[in-house]
Amino acid sequence: MIEPKYFQLAVAAAKRGKDTWTNPQVGAVIVKDHQVLAVGYHHQYGHHHAEIDALEQLDDINQAKGATMYVTLEPCSHYGKTPPCAKRLTEVGISQVMIGQLDPNPIVSGKGVAILKDHGINVEVLGESQGLNEAYNFYYQHGRPLVTLKYAMSLDGKINGGKKERTMLTQTAAQRDAQQLRSRQQVILVGEHTLSIDNPRLTVRTSTMVFPPIRAALVRSVDEVNPESHLLDWSAPTWIFSETAATKQLPENVRVFVSPHWTPSAIVHQLADEGIQSLLVEGGSHLQAAFIAADLVDKAVMYIAPMMLGGTGLPAAMGLPATSQIQFEKPVITTLGPDIRVSTRRA
Amino acid sequence: MIEPKYFQLAVAAAKRGKDTWTNPQVGAVIVKDHQVLAVGYHHQYGHHHAEIDALEQLDDINQAKGATMYVTLEPCSHYGKTPPCAKRLTEVGISQVMIGQLDPNPIVSGKGVAILKDHGINVEVLGESQGLNEAYNFYYQHGRPLVTLKYAMSLDGKINGGKKERTMLTQTAAQRDAQQLRSRQQVILVGEHTLSIDNPRLTVRTSTMVFPPIRAALVRSVDEVNPESHLLDWSAPTWIFSETAATKQLPENVRVFVSPHWTPSAIVHQLADEGIQSLLVEGGSHLQAAFIAADLVDKAVMYIAPMMLGGTGLPAAMGLPATSQIQFEKPVITTLGPDIRVSTRRA
Repeated sequence: MIEPKYFQLAVAAAKRGKDTWTNPQVGAVIVKDHQVLAVGYHHQYGHHHAEIDALEQLDDINQAKGATMYVTLEPCSHYGKTPPCAKRLTEVGISQVMIGQLDPNPIVSGKGVAILKDHGINVEVLGESQGLNEAYNFYYQHGRPLVTLKYAMSLDGKINGGKKERTMLTQTAAQRDAQQLRSRQQVILVGEHTLSIDNPRLTVRTSTMVFPPIRAALVRSVDEVNPESHLLDWSAPTWIFSETAATKQLPENVRVFVSPHWTPSAIVHQLADEGIQSLLVEGGSHLQAAFIAADLVDKAVMYIAPMMLGGTGLPAAMGLPATSQIQFEKPVITTLGPDIRVSTRRA
Repeated sequence: MIEPKYFQLAVAAAKRGKDTWTNPQVGAVIVKDHQVLAVGYHHQYGHHHAEIDALEQLDDINQAKGATMYVTLEPCSHYGKTPPCAKRLTEVGISQVMIGQLDPNPIVSGKGVAILKDHGINVEVLGESQGLNEAYNFYYQHGRPLVTLKYAMSLDGKINGGKKERTMLTQTAAQRDAQQLRSRQQVILVGEHTLSIDNPRLTVRTSTMVFPPIRAALVRSVDEVNPESHLLDWSAPTWIFSETAATKQLPENVRVFVSPHWTPSAIVHQLADEGIQSLLVEGGSHLQAAFIAADLVDKAVMYIAPMMLGGTGLPAAMGLPATSQIQFEKPVITTLGPDIRVSTRRA
């Protein structure tokens, strides 16, 4: 029987994993005779999986014999960067495995469970992700990254003041929150206008990351990108979606994807081919309107600053003439200093 | 000494007054020997003032002798639609008057208190409005109506979908709230585009009002207003701000104000001359941008619908090229069904 307290311990452990990149956050707890013997988690992309991390916390590997493991995700069945965890559990004599959710990847889903059962291990599956690995689950369910639209706007619905310069709207608390949002993304995309006017860094400045989000920009010609752009510095990998190939030398951290006509769908599927599970679209208005028109917005996070701009500045989305009403769920509101955070997901 | 419990009773009574039009909401409580003898309030424009209403609740007018009256606003000193209340209080033998706030009208402020004191009545003034009569107080402090901007917008900052038709964004709860907001206004103004595209009624449909808000529109030529417009029906008075005088016959409930160049400031001061204390600006984008650019927005109420529109629809304000950042206070957030209400005031 799955005891919630041990399962919640595994969930909490999973959440401690940072920088897991495209790997899921996973937590594992080893229990015997109503005693927690070990708690492990997947610390970072390329490091041990949670099950192995938990086994390593044991004083003596023989303690695993006859023990129960709670693990938030189905143990893996394949030889990847590490040997399959399911196999390792059979070797050390774990007698029961309580699993949060099956691996959402349909190609491997159930195979870890099968290995365990084949070795006479008692397996139960709760069938709950507990909010873990939203993008990882989405990617395997939908075959494309989870797309989040993020923008700051004024009370009158504008993302800038209409001049060809950046308008700072939000204060420190909202800015920090936006950085945290970035830290959970694999790719952050901006349009050409935002790239040239705002010259954003698109980096996570609230924590040091081994696997920072890839910075991406959609431009007509990569050759015309200002070589002084922050996006071309060395602080993270950069992907440029361009209509024409580069004829000039680019830094080694820059990759160029070329297609004569990039659409949101084409970008998203190119990212899917690269194994990218999450995409944050950070403006400007035209790029955001294109994603809305393509119905490729899964989540939205908006920061509303208590000011009005008036004038000719653009709203959060402005572009493709086709207008569709895309419905979202009832938003969750958070106040951040003087600003408001409104977050919601596609209904 | 002012006892808060009696004062709060008077405040609660004041709030029961509906349809007081340009008169303030006022409540009055008569207390003697720690007993509440009567509670009165100003029910409706043209009816008794609160003090008189309270006196009328007494079983016997002689009970007023030696009693204390709690009244939220300074008793009036002038002969208007009714004889001065201050004088009446002296006649019936009230011995103490506890006043919430002095009348904000500088021409009469303090005169009611003076009459009472001249007759040997003990007077104390708390100096607090308790949130009553916001527009009334504002009008006398600033010499113009309190201006509230109201609009519904999508998550992407748009008030419509960009086609020449009305876009319904909010659901029932937010629509009802907007009606309540209207019911507390003396004038509701829309621009020409909103008048022709939306053909709004600008009426209060959640309650029957003897003094409904005056419906107003800013147009280039009153002659060009569609005679079938809801605004020209008989359900409330209508004021048209036009650049040219009417050459056609108009219904009797329609007044036309003519000026070759109407600006937000000119409109607001025209309304002030008419004794109007509150103005609700209900769109569209250009009119709202003009009020923002003129820094003539004192309060803002926005309803955010959880949908995205994309396309070429306008943001809540779009117009005058001058861009200024007008700061507002930290907003108050309310959820109304699936929608969010964000209200704030000029910082």
